[in-house]
Amino acid sequence: MSTSRVDGQWFREEDSSWAGYSVSLKIEEILFQGKSDFQDILVFKSTSFGVVLVLNGIIQCTERDERTYQEMIAHLPLNSHPNPQKVLVIGGGDGGVVREALKYKSVSSVVLCEIDQKVIDVCRKFLPSMASCLDDERVTIHVGDGIAYVKDHPGEFDVIITDAPDPIGMAEGLYQKAFYQDMKNALKSDGIMCCQGETTWFDLPLIKRMLKDCRSIFPRVAYAVGNTPTYVGGQMGYMLCSSDPKAKLVQPLRQYSDAELIKMNMQYYSPEIHVASFVLPFFIKKNLQEVLDT
Amino acid sequence: MSTSRVDGQWFREEDSSWAGYSVSLKIEEILFQGKSDFQDILVFKSTSFGVVLVLNGIIQCTERDERTYQEMIAHLPLNSHPNPQKVLVIGGGDGGVVREALKYKSVSSVVLCEIDQKVIDVCRKFLPSMASCLDDERVTIHVGDGIAYVKDHPGEFDVIITDAPDPIGMAEGLYQKAFYQDMKNALKSDGIMCCQGETTWFDLPLIKRMLKDCRSIFPRVAYAVGNTPTYVGGQMGYMLCSSDPKAKLVQPLRQYSDAELIKMNMQYYSPEIHVASFVLPFFIKKNLQEVLDT
Repeated sequence: MSTSRVDGQWFREEDSSWAGYSVSLKIEEILFQGKSDFQDILVFKSTSFGVVLVLNGIIQCTERDERTYQEMIAHLPLNSHPNPQKVLVIGGGDGGVVREALKYKSVSSVVLCEIDQKVIDVCRKFLPSMASCLDDERVTIHVGDGIAYVKDHPGEFDVIITDAPDPIGMAEGLYQKAFYQDMKNALKSDGIMCCQGETTWFDLPLIKRMLKDCRSIFPRVAYAVGNTPTYVGGQMGYMLCSSDPKAKLVQPLRQYSDAELIKMNMQYYSPEIHVASFVLPFFIKKNLQEVLDT
Repeated sequence: MSTSRVDGQWFREEDSSWAGYSVSLKIEEILFQGKSDFQDILVFKSTSFGVVLVLNGIIQCTERDERTYQEMIAHLPLNSHPNPQKVLVIGGGDGGVVREALKYKSVSSVVLCEIDQKVIDVCRKFLPSMASCLDDERVTIHVGDGIAYVKDHPGEFDVIITDAPDPIGMAEGLYQKAFYQDMKNALKSDGIMCCQGETTWFDLPLIKRMLKDCRSIFPRVAYAVGNTPTYVGGQMGYMLCSSDPKAKLVQPLRQYSDAELIKMNMQYYSPEIHVASFVLPFFIKKNLQEVLDT
Protein backbone atom coordinates (compact mmCIF):
# COMPACT_ATOMS: atom_id res chain seq x y z
CA MET A 1 0.00 0.00 0.00
CA SER A 2 1.32 3.39 -0.97
CA THR A 3 1.83 6.06 1.66
CA SER A 4 3.57 8.39 -0.77
CA ARG A 5 3.07 12.07 -0.26
CA VAL A 6 3.91 15.60 -1.23
CA ASP A 7 6.11 16.67 1.68
CA GLY A 8 7.15 20.29 1.48
CA GLN A 9 8.92 20.68 -1.88
CA TRP A 10 9.40 16.93 -2.37
CA PHE A 11 7.33 14.04 -3.70
CA ARG A 12 8.25 11.03 -1.57
CA GLU A 13 7.31 7.62 -2.97
CA GLU A 14 6.68 5.10 -0.23
CA ASP A 15 4.96 1.74 -0.53
CA SER A 16 4.68 -1.34 1.64
CA SER A 17 6.04 -3.43 -1.28
CA TRP A 18 9.43 -1.75 -0.78
CA ALA A 19 9.07 -0.66 2.82
CA GLY A 20 12.02 1.24 4.25
CA TYR A 21 13.33 2.42 0.84
CA SER A 22 12.16 5.51 -0.96
CA VAL A 23 12.98 7.51 -4.07
CA SER A 24 12.05 11.19 -3.84
CA LEU A 25 11.90 13.88 -6.50
CA LYS A 26 11.87 17.60 -5.85
CA ILE A 27 8.81 19.45 -7.10
CA GLU A 28 9.06 22.61 -9.16
CA GLU A 29 5.32 22.89 -9.85
CA ILE A 30 2.27 20.70 -9.42
CA LEU A 31 0.52 20.54 -12.79
CA PHE A 32 -2.45 18.30 -11.97
CA GLN A 33 -3.82 16.57 -8.92
CA GLY A 34 -7.11 14.71 -9.04
CA LYS A 35 -9.01 11.48 -8.87
CA SER A 36 -10.36 9.44 -11.77
CA ASP A 37 -12.90 6.62 -11.49
CA PHE A 38 -9.95 4.29 -10.95
CA GLN A 39 -7.10 6.04 -9.19
CA ASP A 40 -5.39 9.11 -7.79
CA ILE A 41 -3.50 11.00 -10.47
CA LEU A 42 -0.68 13.45 -9.81
CA VAL A 43 1.39 15.22 -12.46
CA PHE A 44 4.20 17.54 -11.42
CA LYS A 45 7.19 19.23 -12.96
CA SER A 46 10.25 18.06 -11.05
CA THR A 47 13.39 20.18 -10.72
CA SER A 48 15.65 17.62 -12.40
CA PHE A 49 13.62 14.84 -14.10
CA GLY A 50 11.11 16.88 -16.12
CA VAL A 51 7.37 16.16 -15.89
CA VAL A 52 6.44 13.20 -13.66
CA LEU A 53 3.28 11.05 -13.78
CA VAL A 54 2.24 9.45 -10.49
CA LEU A 55 -0.68 6.99 -10.18
CA ASN A 56 -1.91 5.94 -6.75
CA GLY A 57 1.26 7.32 -5.23
CA ILE A 58 3.66 5.38 -7.50
CA ILE A 59 5.95 7.04 -10.06
CA GLN A 60 4.96 5.77 -13.52
CA CYS A 61 7.36 7.78 -15.63
CA THR A 62 9.47 10.92 -15.80
CA GLU A 63 10.35 12.80 -18.96
CA ARG A 64 14.05 12.38 -18.31
CA ASP A 65 14.26 8.60 -17.98
CA GLU A 66 10.96 7.22 -19.37
CA ARG A 67 12.62 5.97 -22.53
CA THR A 68 14.77 3.52 -20.56
CA TYR A 69 11.56 1.68 -19.73
CA GLN A 70 9.40 2.29 -22.82
CA GLU A 71 12.18 1.25 -25.17
CA MET A 72 13.00 -1.95 -23.31
CA ILE A 73 9.41 -3.14 -22.86
CA ALA A 74 8.68 -2.41 -26.53
CA HIS A 75 11.85 -3.29 -28.44
CA LEU A 76 12.69 -6.49 -26.56
CA PRO A 77 9.54 -8.17 -27.97
CA LEU A 78 9.31 -6.20 -31.24
CA ASN A 79 12.93 -6.84 -32.17
CA SER A 80 12.46 -10.53 -31.29
CA HIS A 81 9.55 -10.88 -33.71
CA PRO A 82 10.35 -11.54 -37.40
CA ASN A 83 7.50 -9.41 -38.76
CA PRO A 84 5.45 -7.51 -36.16
CA GLN A 85 2.29 -6.08 -37.72
CA LYS A 86 -0.52 -6.00 -35.17
CA VAL A 87 0.46 -4.80 -31.70
CA LEU A 88 -1.67 -4.57 -28.54
CA VAL A 89 -0.57 -2.39 -25.62
CA ILE A 90 -2.45 -2.99 -22.35
CA GLY A 91 -2.23 -0.09 -19.91
CA GLY A 92 0.31 2.51 -20.97
CA GLY A 93 -2.19 5.35 -21.42
CA ASP A 94 0.76 7.73 -21.42
CA GLY A 95 1.50 6.57 -24.98
CA GLY A 96 5.19 5.84 -24.46
CA VAL A 97 5.06 2.19 -25.49
CA VAL A 98 2.81 2.98 -28.47
CA ARG A 99 5.37 5.59 -29.59
CA GLU A 100 8.10 2.92 -29.58
CA ALA A 101 5.96 0.35 -31.45
CA LEU A 102 5.27 2.88 -34.20
CA LYS A 103 9.01 3.01 -34.95
CA TYR A 104 8.62 -0.29 -36.88
CA LYS A 105 7.60 0.13 -40.50
CA SER A 106 6.08 -3.36 -40.47
CA VAL A 107 3.65 -2.36 -37.72
CA SER A 108 0.32 -1.58 -39.38
CA SER A 109 -1.83 -1.20 -36.28
CA VAL A 110 -1.38 -0.55 -32.58
CA VAL A 111 -4.33 -0.96 -30.23
CA LEU A 112 -3.98 0.84 -26.91
CA CYS A 113 -6.26 -0.71 -24.30
CA GLU A 114 -6.21 1.62 -21.29
CA ILE A 115 -8.84 1.43 -18.58
CA ASP A 116 -8.59 5.05 -17.51
CA GLN A 117 -9.52 7.80 -20.01
CA LYS A 118 -8.33 10.40 -17.52
CA VAL A 119 -4.74 9.10 -17.74
CA ILE A 120 -4.82 9.52 -21.52
CA ASP A 121 -6.25 13.03 -21.23
CA VAL A 122 -3.76 14.17 -18.63
CA CYS A 123 -0.80 12.75 -20.59
CA ARG A 124 -1.97 14.35 -23.82
CA LYS A 125 -1.88 17.66 -21.98
CA PHE A 126 1.25 17.38 -19.84
CA LEU A 127 3.38 14.65 -21.48
CA PRO A 128 3.03 15.29 -25.22
CA SER A 129 6.44 13.76 -25.93
CA MET A 130 4.84 10.45 -25.02
CA ALA A 131 1.12 10.89 -25.75
CA SER A 132 1.14 12.85 -29.01
CA CYS A 133 1.82 9.60 -30.92
CA LEU A 134 -1.73 8.53 -30.02
CA ASP A 135 -2.91 10.74 -32.91
CA ASP A 136 -1.06 8.52 -35.39
CA GLU A 137 -3.48 6.97 -37.87
CA ARG A 138 -2.18 3.47 -37.11
CA VAL A 139 -3.32 3.81 -33.47
CA THR A 140 -6.73 2.71 -32.13
CA ILE A 141 -7.56 3.66 -28.55
CA HIS A 142 -9.87 1.32 -26.66
CA VAL A 143 -10.83 2.61 -23.22
CA GLY A 144 -11.66 -0.47 -21.19
CA ASP A 145 -10.48 -3.47 -19.25
CA GLY A 146 -7.43 -5.24 -20.74
CA ILE A 147 -8.46 -8.62 -19.32
CA ALA A 148 -11.81 -8.51 -21.11
CA TYR A 149 -10.20 -7.18 -24.29
CA VAL A 150 -7.72 -10.02 -24.75
CA LYS A 151 -10.47 -12.60 -24.11
CA ASP A 152 -12.49 -11.08 -26.97
CA HIS A 153 -9.65 -11.05 -29.54
CA PRO A 154 -8.29 -14.57 -30.04
CA GLY A 155 -5.40 -15.13 -32.47
CA GLU A 156 -5.19 -11.50 -33.44
CA PHE A 157 -1.86 -10.03 -32.38
CA ASP A 158 1.79 -10.46 -33.25
CA VAL A 159 2.98 -8.70 -30.11
CA ILE A 160 1.20 -7.90 -26.83
CA ILE A 161 2.85 -5.57 -24.32
CA THR A 162 1.47 -5.24 -20.80
CA ASP A 163 2.55 -1.88 -19.48
CA ALA A 164 0.89 -2.45 -16.13
CA PRO A 165 1.30 -0.69 -12.81
CA ASP A 166 2.38 -2.78 -9.82
CA PRO A 167 0.08 -5.71 -8.92
CA ILE A 168 -1.89 -3.81 -6.31
CA GLY A 169 -5.67 -3.34 -6.45
CA MET A 170 -7.15 -3.17 -9.94
CA ALA A 171 -3.92 -4.23 -11.67
CA GLU A 172 -3.72 -7.52 -9.76
CA GLY A 173 -5.53 -9.46 -12.47
CA LEU A 174 -2.78 -8.52 -14.93
CA TYR A 175 -0.38 -10.74 -12.95
CA GLN A 176 -2.53 -13.88 -12.88
CA LYS A 177 -2.03 -17.14 -14.76
CA ALA A 178 -5.49 -16.89 -16.34
CA PHE A 179 -4.50 -13.59 -17.92
CA TYR A 180 -1.25 -15.03 -19.29
CA GLN A 181 -3.30 -17.84 -20.89
CA ASP A 182 -5.73 -15.30 -22.38
CA MET A 183 -2.81 -13.35 -23.79
CA LYS A 184 -1.41 -16.49 -25.38
CA ASN A 185 -4.83 -17.08 -26.95
CA ALA A 186 -4.92 -13.51 -28.26
CA LEU A 187 -1.53 -13.96 -29.95
CA LYS A 188 -0.93 -15.50 -33.35
CA SER A 189 0.91 -18.81 -33.34
CA ASP A 190 4.35 -17.13 -33.43
CA GLY A 191 3.31 -14.22 -31.22
CA ILE A 192 5.38 -12.66 -28.43
CA MET A 193 4.27 -10.95 -25.26
CA CYS A 194 6.24 -8.76 -22.88
CA CYS A 195 5.19 -7.75 -19.37
CA GLN A 196 6.53 -5.29 -16.87
CA GLY A 197 8.62 -7.61 -14.73
CA GLU A 198 8.93 -5.79 -11.42
CA THR A 199 12.15 -5.30 -9.45
CA THR A 200 14.34 -8.16 -8.35
CA TRP A 201 15.40 -6.34 -5.16
CA PHE A 202 11.87 -6.33 -3.79
CA ASP A 203 9.73 -8.77 -5.78
CA LEU A 204 11.73 -11.96 -6.37
CA PRO A 205 9.02 -14.35 -5.10
CA LEU A 206 6.40 -12.66 -7.31
CA ILE A 207 8.74 -12.67 -10.32
CA LYS A 208 9.45 -16.35 -9.79
CA ARG A 209 5.74 -17.13 -9.65
CA MET A 210 5.06 -15.07 -12.81
CA LEU A 211 7.81 -16.90 -14.69
CA LYS A 212 6.62 -20.28 -13.45
CA ASP A 213 3.06 -19.54 -14.54
CA CYS A 214 4.26 -18.47 -17.96
CA ARG A 215 6.55 -21.49 -18.34
CA SER A 216 3.47 -23.68 -18.04
CA ILE A 217 1.77 -21.76 -20.88
CA PHE A 218 4.48 -20.56 -23.29
CA PRO A 219 7.26 -22.71 -24.77
CA ARG A 220 9.77 -19.84 -24.49
CA VAL A 221 10.19 -17.59 -21.45
CA ALA A 222 13.02 -15.15 -20.69
CA TYR A 223 13.72 -12.41 -18.21
CA ALA A 224 15.76 -9.22 -18.67
CA VAL A 225 16.70 -6.31 -16.43
CA GLY A 226 17.49 -2.66 -17.10
CA ASN A 227 18.26 0.53 -15.22
CA THR A 228 15.62 3.22 -14.59
CA PRO A 229 16.67 5.72 -11.88
CA THR A 230 13.15 6.67 -10.81
CA TYR A 231 11.92 3.10 -10.27
CA VAL A 232 12.66 1.55 -6.88
CA GLY A 233 16.08 -0.02 -6.73
CA GLY A 234 16.97 1.78 -9.98
CA GLN A 235 15.97 -1.40 -11.77
CA MET A 236 13.13 -2.75 -13.90
CA GLY A 237 12.59 -6.30 -15.04
CA TYR A 238 10.97 -7.48 -18.28
CA MET A 239 9.32 -10.85 -18.82
CA LEU A 240 9.32 -12.04 -22.42
CA CYS A 241 7.28 -15.04 -23.64
CA SER A 242 6.90 -16.53 -27.08
CA SER A 243 4.39 -18.99 -28.51
CA ASP A 244 7.04 -20.07 -31.00
CA PRO A 245 9.25 -22.81 -29.51
CA LYS A 246 12.03 -21.80 -31.91
CA ALA A 247 12.02 -18.12 -30.95
CA LYS A 248 15.40 -16.81 -29.75
CA LEU A 249 14.19 -14.06 -27.46
CA VAL A 250 17.61 -13.10 -26.17
CA GLN A 251 19.00 -12.42 -29.66
CA PRO A 252 17.60 -9.40 -31.52
CA LEU A 253 16.52 -10.07 -35.10
CA ARG A 254 17.53 -6.64 -36.46
CA GLN A 255 20.83 -4.85 -36.02
CA TYR A 256 20.89 -1.04 -36.00
CA SER A 257 23.87 1.22 -36.49
CA ASP A 258 24.47 4.06 -34.04
CA ALA A 259 23.28 6.50 -36.70
CA GLU A 260 20.02 4.54 -37.04
CA LEU A 261 19.57 4.43 -33.25
CA ILE A 262 20.02 8.20 -33.09
CA LYS A 263 17.46 8.61 -35.88
CA MET A 264 15.09 6.35 -33.92
CA ASN A 265 15.65 8.67 -30.93
CA MET A 266 16.83 5.82 -28.70
CA GLN A 267 17.97 6.67 -25.20
CA TYR A 268 18.67 3.22 -23.75
CA TYR A 269 17.95 0.33 -26.13
CA SER A 270 20.38 -1.01 -28.70
CA PRO A 271 20.74 -4.53 -30.14
CA GLU A 272 23.81 -4.97 -27.89
CA ILE A 273 21.82 -3.92 -24.81
CA HIS A 274 19.08 -6.38 -25.89
CA VAL A 275 21.56 -9.26 -25.52
CA ALA A 276 23.26 -7.90 -22.38
CA SER A 277 19.99 -7.26 -20.53
CA PHE A 278 19.29 -11.01 -20.36
CA VAL A 279 22.61 -11.60 -18.57
CA LEU A 280 21.37 -11.54 -14.99
CA PRO A 281 23.36 -10.54 -11.90
CA PHE A 282 24.26 -13.70 -10.04
CA PHE A 283 21.70 -13.46 -7.22
CA ILE A 284 18.93 -13.11 -9.80
CA LYS A 285 20.23 -15.93 -11.98
CA LYS A 286 20.61 -18.22 -8.97
CA ASN A 287 17.06 -17.52 -7.85
CA LEU A 288 15.36 -17.69 -11.23
CA GLN A 289 17.28 -20.27 -13.21
CA GLU A 290 14.94 -23.15 -12.41
CA VAL A 291 12.05 -21.22 -14.01
CA LEU A 292 13.98 -19.86 -17.00
CA ASP A 293 14.98 -21.35 -20.35
CA THR A 294 18.55 -22.54 -20.31
CA MET B 1 27.39 19.64 -1.17
CA SER B 2 25.43 17.23 0.97
CA THR B 3 22.36 18.42 2.82
CA SER B 4 21.41 14.87 3.87
CA ARG B 5 19.73 14.48 7.19
CA VAL B 6 18.00 12.25 9.66
CA ASP B 7 14.39 13.30 9.26
CA GLY B 8 12.06 11.60 11.70
CA GLN B 9 12.55 7.86 11.12
CA TRP B 10 14.28 8.30 7.76
CA PHE B 11 17.78 9.02 6.56
CA ARG B 12 17.40 11.22 3.48
CA GLU B 13 20.44 11.51 1.21
CA GLU B 14 20.55 14.82 -0.62
CA ASP B 15 23.46 16.36 -2.45
CA SER B 16 23.92 19.21 -4.90
CA SER B 17 25.59 16.75 -7.32
CA TRP B 18 22.20 15.05 -7.81
CA ALA B 19 19.94 17.92 -6.81
CA GLY B 20 16.23 17.14 -6.91
CA TYR B 21 16.67 13.34 -6.57
CA SER B 22 17.01 11.48 -3.29
CA VAL B 23 17.23 7.94 -2.01
CA SER B 24 15.99 7.49 1.56
CA LEU B 25 16.30 4.57 3.95
CA LYS B 26 14.19 4.06 7.05
CA ILE B 27 16.11 3.92 10.32
CA GLU B 28 15.59 1.18 12.85
CA GLU B 29 18.37 2.30 15.17
CA ILE B 30 21.27 4.73 15.03
CA LEU B 31 24.43 2.81 15.94
CA PHE B 32 27.05 5.54 15.72
CA GLN B 33 27.11 9.22 14.96
CA GLY B 34 30.31 11.21 15.24
CA LYS B 35 33.04 13.21 13.59
CA SER B 36 36.53 12.03 12.74
CA ASP B 37 39.45 14.30 11.79
CA PHE B 38 38.24 14.01 8.21
CA GLN B 39 34.49 13.63 8.04
CA ASP B 40 31.10 13.09 9.61
CA ILE B 41 30.39 9.40 10.20
CA LEU B 42 26.94 7.91 10.65
CA VAL B 43 26.15 4.21 11.04
CA PHE B 44 22.56 3.06 11.38
CA LYS B 45 20.57 -0.11 11.17
CA SER B 46 17.97 0.36 8.46
CA THR B 47 14.64 -1.46 8.45
CA SER B 48 15.24 -3.19 5.12
CA PHE B 49 18.89 -2.83 3.98
CA GLY B 50 20.76 -3.91 7.12
CA VAL B 51 23.53 -1.75 8.59
CA VAL B 52 24.33 1.40 6.59
CA LEU B 53 27.57 3.43 6.57
CA VAL B 54 27.21 7.13 5.72
CA LEU B 55 30.20 9.48 5.29
CA ASN B 56 29.64 13.22 5.02
CA GLY B 57 25.97 12.58 4.37
CA ILE B 58 26.52 10.12 1.48
CA ILE B 59 25.58 6.43 1.66
CA GLN B 60 28.80 4.40 1.24
CA CYS B 61 27.37 0.92 1.62
CA THR B 62 24.53 -1.13 3.07
CA GLU B 63 24.80 -4.73 4.21
CA ARG B 64 22.11 -5.81 1.79
CA ASP B 65 23.56 -4.54 -1.48
CA GLU B 66 27.25 -3.74 -0.75
CA ARG B 67 28.46 -6.78 -2.62
CA THR B 68 27.06 -5.44 -5.91
CA TYR B 69 29.67 -2.70 -5.67
CA GLN B 70 32.57 -4.42 -3.88
CA GLU B 71 32.46 -7.39 -6.23
CA MET B 72 32.40 -5.31 -9.40
CA ILE B 73 35.16 -2.87 -8.40
CA ALA B 74 37.34 -5.80 -7.29
CA HIS B 75 36.67 -8.63 -9.74
CA LEU B 76 36.56 -6.53 -12.92
CA PRO B 77 40.28 -5.71 -12.53
CA LEU B 78 41.33 -8.89 -10.68
CA ASN B 79 39.69 -11.19 -13.20
CA SER B 80 41.27 -9.17 -16.03
CA HIS B 81 44.77 -9.70 -14.63
CA PRO B 82 46.59 -12.95 -15.54
CA ASN B 83 48.27 -13.36 -12.15
CA PRO B 84 47.34 -10.78 -9.50
CA GLN B 85 49.68 -11.01 -6.50
CA LYS B 86 50.13 -7.57 -4.93
CA VAL B 87 46.98 -5.50 -4.58
CA LEU B 88 46.56 -1.94 -3.29
CA VAL B 89 43.15 -0.65 -2.18
CA ILE B 90 42.91 3.12 -1.70
CA GLY B 91 40.02 4.21 0.52
CA GLY B 92 37.65 1.38 1.29
CA GLY B 93 38.26 1.35 5.04
CA ASP B 94 35.11 -0.75 5.39
CA GLY B 95 37.13 -3.72 4.11
CA GLY B 96 34.65 -4.83 1.43
CA VAL B 97 37.07 -4.55 -1.50
CA VAL B 98 39.87 -6.21 0.49
CA ARG B 99 37.52 -9.11 1.26
CA GLU B 100 36.91 -9.62 -2.47
CA ALA B 101 40.62 -9.40 -3.37
CA LEU B 102 41.43 -12.09 -0.82
CA LYS B 103 39.24 -14.52 -2.77
CA TYR B 104 42.13 -14.99 -5.25
CA LYS B 105 44.65 -17.62 -4.23
CA SER B 106 47.32 -15.87 -6.30
CA VAL B 107 46.98 -12.73 -4.18
CA SER B 108 49.82 -12.76 -1.65
CA SER B 109 49.37 -9.28 -0.20
CA VAL B 110 46.70 -6.61 -0.02
CA VAL B 111 47.60 -3.12 1.24
CA LEU B 112 44.66 -1.06 2.44
CA CYS B 113 45.50 2.64 2.36
CA GLU B 114 42.70 4.43 4.19
CA ILE B 115 43.08 8.00 5.41
CA ASP B 116 40.60 7.71 8.27
CA GLN B 117 41.34 5.28 11.13
CA LYS B 118 37.91 6.03 12.55
CA VAL B 119 36.18 4.51 9.50
CA ILE B 120 38.14 1.29 9.98
CA ASP B 121 37.30 1.20 13.70
CA VAL B 122 33.59 1.84 13.17
CA CYS B 123 33.33 -0.79 10.42
CA ARG B 124 35.18 -3.39 12.47
CA LYS B 125 32.52 -2.86 15.13
CA PHE B 126 29.33 -2.49 13.10
CA LEU B 127 30.07 -4.06 9.69
CA PRO B 128 32.10 -7.20 10.51
CA SER B 129 30.86 -8.96 7.35
CA MET B 130 33.04 -6.47 5.49
CA ALA B 131 35.77 -5.45 7.92
CA SER B 132 36.65 -8.73 9.62
CA CYS B 133 38.79 -9.71 6.60
CA LEU B 134 41.21 -6.96 7.66
CA ASP B 135 42.57 -9.44 10.22
CA ASP B 136 43.74 -11.75 7.40
CA GLU B 137 47.51 -12.21 7.52
CA ARG B 138 47.86 -11.17 3.89
CA VAL B 139 46.46 -7.69 4.69
CA THR B 140 48.55 -4.64 5.66
CA ILE B 141 46.68 -1.56 6.80
CA HIS B 142 48.32 1.79 6.11
CA VAL B 143 46.47 4.73 7.62
CA GLY B 144 47.36 7.70 5.48
CA ASP B 145 46.89 9.64 2.28
CA GLY B 146 46.49 7.48 -0.85
CA ILE B 147 48.00 10.13 -3.10
CA ALA B 148 51.23 10.20 -1.11
CA TYR B 149 51.26 6.40 -0.81
CA VAL B 150 51.17 5.68 -4.55
CA LYS B 151 53.93 8.27 -5.17
CA ASP B 152 56.16 6.40 -2.72
CA HIS B 153 55.64 2.91 -4.20
CA PRO B 154 56.67 2.88 -7.87
CA GLY B 155 56.31 -0.34 -9.87
CA GLU B 156 54.99 -2.33 -6.95
CA PHE B 157 51.42 -3.46 -7.60
CA ASP B 158 49.62 -5.77 -9.98
CA VAL B 159 46.21 -4.22 -9.26
CA ILE B 160 45.24 -0.90 -7.68
CA ILE B 161 41.60 -0.27 -6.75
CA THR B 162 40.43 3.21 -5.80
CA ASP B 163 37.36 2.83 -3.63
CA ALA B 164 36.90 6.57 -3.27
CA PRO B 165 33.96 8.62 -2.12
CA ASP B 166 32.54 11.20 -4.53
CA PRO B 167 35.01 13.88 -5.69
CA ILE B 168 34.01 16.44 -3.09
CA GLY B 169 36.44 17.98 -0.60
CA MET B 170 39.31 15.74 0.45
CA ALA B 171 38.56 13.08 -2.20
CA GLU B 172 38.92 15.54 -5.08
CA GLY B 173 42.59 14.70 -5.61
CA LEU B 174 41.63 11.08 -6.30
CA TYR B 175 39.93 12.23 -9.52
CA GLN B 176 42.87 14.21 -10.93
CA LYS B 177 45.12 13.36 -13.86
CA ALA B 178 48.24 13.61 -11.69
CA PHE B 179 46.88 10.85 -9.47
CA TYR B 180 46.10 8.61 -12.42
CA GLN B 181 49.71 9.07 -13.58
CA ASP B 182 51.00 8.26 -10.09
CA MET B 183 48.86 5.10 -10.06
CA LYS B 184 50.29 4.05 -13.40
CA ASN B 185 53.77 4.53 -11.95
CA ALA B 186 52.86 2.45 -8.89
CA LEU B 187 51.72 -0.44 -11.12
CA LYS B 188 53.92 -3.10 -12.64
CA SER B 189 54.22 -3.00 -16.42
CA ASP B 190 51.14 -5.18 -16.93
CA GLY B 191 49.23 -3.69 -13.99
CA ILE B 192 45.53 -2.82 -13.93
CA MET B 193 43.72 -0.16 -11.97
CA CYS B 194 40.00 0.26 -11.31
CA CYS B 195 38.29 3.38 -9.99
CA GLN B 196 34.82 4.11 -8.74
CA GLY B 197 33.31 5.56 -11.90
CA GLU B 198 30.39 7.65 -10.64
CA THR B 199 26.87 7.61 -12.07
CA THR B 200 26.11 8.33 -15.69
CA TRP B 201 22.74 9.94 -14.84
CA PHE B 202 24.39 12.75 -12.90
CA ASP B 203 28.11 12.83 -13.68
CA LEU B 204 28.61 12.29 -17.43
CA PRO B 205 30.87 15.35 -17.95
CA LEU B 206 33.08 14.26 -15.02
CA ILE B 207 33.16 10.65 -16.27
CA LYS B 208 34.13 11.84 -19.74
CA ARG B 209 36.96 13.93 -18.31
CA MET B 210 38.20 11.03 -16.14
CA LEU B 211 38.22 8.68 -19.14
CA LYS B 212 39.96 11.26 -21.33
CA ASP B 213 42.65 11.83 -18.70
CA CYS B 214 43.22 8.10 -18.40
CA ARG B 215 43.31 7.58 -22.16
CA SER B 216 46.28 9.94 -22.27
CA ILE B 217 48.10 7.82 -19.66
CA PHE B 218 47.03 4.18 -20.11
CA PRO B 219 46.98 2.26 -23.41
CA ARG B 220 43.73 0.46 -22.43
CA VAL B 221 40.69 2.15 -20.87
CA ALA B 222 37.18 0.73 -20.45
CA TYR B 223 34.01 1.67 -18.61
CA ALA B 224 31.38 -0.61 -17.10
CA VAL B 225 28.11 -0.05 -15.25
CA GLY B 226 26.22 -2.06 -12.65
CA ASN B 227 23.13 -1.78 -10.47
CA THR B 228 23.30 -0.80 -6.78
CA PRO B 229 19.89 0.22 -5.36
CA THR B 230 21.26 2.51 -2.64
CA TYR B 231 23.50 4.58 -4.93
CA VAL B 232 21.84 7.49 -6.72
CA GLY B 233 20.16 6.46 -9.93
CA GLY B 234 20.50 2.81 -8.86
CA GLN B 235 23.70 2.73 -10.87
CA MET B 236 27.46 2.69 -10.37
CA GLY B 237 30.15 3.05 -13.01
CA TYR B 238 33.61 1.46 -12.99
CA MET B 239 36.64 2.77 -14.85
CA LEU B 240 39.20 0.13 -15.74
CA CYS B 241 42.68 0.96 -17.07
CA SER B 242 45.57 -1.28 -18.02
CA SER B 243 49.23 -0.57 -18.65
CA ASP B 244 49.33 -3.58 -20.95
CA PRO B 245 48.30 -2.57 -24.49
CA LYS B 246 47.24 -6.17 -25.15
CA ALA B 247 44.95 -6.45 -22.10
CA LYS B 248 41.38 -7.43 -22.93
CA LEU B 249 39.63 -5.77 -20.02
CA VAL B 250 36.11 -6.59 -21.15
CA GLN B 251 36.77 -10.36 -21.28
CA PRO B 252 37.35 -12.11 -17.95
CA LEU B 253 40.39 -14.39 -17.81
CA ARG B 254 38.83 -16.99 -15.49
CA GLN B 255 35.49 -18.72 -15.85
CA TYR B 256 33.63 -19.83 -12.72
CA SER B 257 30.77 -22.30 -12.49
CA ASP B 258 27.66 -21.39 -10.53
CA ALA B 259 28.80 -23.76 -7.78
CA GLU B 260 32.14 -21.92 -7.58
CA LEU B 261 30.41 -18.53 -7.51
CA ILE B 262 28.23 -19.72 -4.62
CA LYS B 263 31.33 -20.95 -2.81
CA MET B 264 32.92 -17.53 -3.42
CA ASN B 265 29.80 -15.97 -1.87
CA MET B 266 29.10 -13.85 -4.94
CA GLN B 267 25.98 -11.73 -4.96
CA TYR B 268 26.32 -9.85 -8.25
CA TYR B 269 29.49 -10.65 -10.19
CA SER B 270 29.90 -13.53 -12.59
CA PRO B 271 32.12 -13.88 -15.67
CA GLU B 272 28.99 -13.34 -17.81
CA ILE B 273 28.14 -10.14 -15.91
CA HIS B 274 31.77 -9.03 -16.39
CA VAL B 275 31.24 -9.05 -20.16
CA ALA B 276 27.70 -7.64 -20.07
CA SER B 277 28.59 -4.74 -17.76
CA PHE B 278 30.74 -3.18 -20.49
CA VAL B 279 27.78 -3.08 -22.88
CA LEU B 280 26.60 0.46 -22.22
CA PRO B 281 23.04 1.78 -22.58
CA PHE B 282 22.90 3.84 -25.76
CA PHE B 283 22.96 7.32 -24.20
CA ILE B 284 26.11 6.39 -22.31
CA LYS B 285 27.79 4.79 -25.32
CA LYS B 286 26.92 7.78 -27.51
CA ASN B 287 28.41 10.18 -24.97
CA LEU B 288 31.53 8.24 -24.09
CA GLN B 289 32.53 6.43 -27.25
CA GLU B 290 35.05 9.04 -28.35
CA VAL B 291 37.00 8.51 -25.11
CA LEU B 292 36.72 4.71 -24.99
CA ASP B 293 38.57 1.88 -26.68
CA THR B 294 36.69 0.57 -29.67
